[in-house]
Amino acid sequence: MDVINLDEKFALFAEHWRPKVAGSLNGQEVKLVKVQGVFPWHTHQDADELFMVWKGRFRVEFRDRIAELAAGDVIIVPRGVEHRTAADEEAEVLIFEPAEVRNTGDIVDATFTAPQGVAI
Amino acid sequence: MDVINLDEKFALFAEHWRPKVAGSLNGQEVKLVKVQGVFPWHTHQDADELFMVWKGRFRVEFRDRIAELAAGDVIIVPRGVEHRTAADEEAEVLIFEPAEVRNTGDIVDATFTAPQGVAI
Repeated sequence: MDVINLDEKFALFAEHWRPKVAGSLNGQEVKLVKVQGVFPWHTHQDADELFMVWKGRFRVEFRDRIAELAAGDVIIVPRGVEHRTAADEEAEVLIFEPAEVRNTGDIVDATFTAPQGVAI
Repeated sequence: MDVINLDEKFALFAEHWRPKVAGSLNGQEVKLVKVQGVFPWHTHQDADELFMVWKGRFRVEFRDRIAELAAGDVIIVPRGVEHRTAADEEAEVLIFEPAEVRNTGDIVDATFTAPQGVAI
């Protein structure tokens, strides 16, 4: 039951597109990720995914539109909806989703698929 | 898949201790609540509960200690752990927990037990 300070946690790592698990509850995980650039298109068939922007600007792109988010903005991507995420400059993003979701969903990418369950 | 802006959502209501559902995913809800004063002692037997402070200062009190949180701090209260929340001045807090959790857990309080499922 420690207090988790988001700024302190984000300061502990620098790499992009490698989610870190900051907490677990009810079969879900709270993950922190730094992003910059464009992530591959993918779909999570069995998991809705929430993104909350903590710092910077962040995009969630769908095949038919783009959602632009800034700090304090939240979006929930329903399961089965293809998407990719992107940021022109580094952004800090929180993810809420079920435990053990692969970050690249239904694809495996040599660069972007990240190890799961990395705690911070 | 609308973008949810936390500041805009918090600006839509003024009452204290009445969680509003800002989003749902994977059987969980994201709730926004304004708090001031001291909430009753209670326990959620079947739900872990995450609090994230968005604005202000907030306490989660346990029988043997007090966790002090400020904006950007997160705490996860495991199921079965008695607690009460408090804030000397108004604070804005995000809650992440399973859908249809009663805010007062195992007790019913004429003042503090809030309607469930109120969307915002």
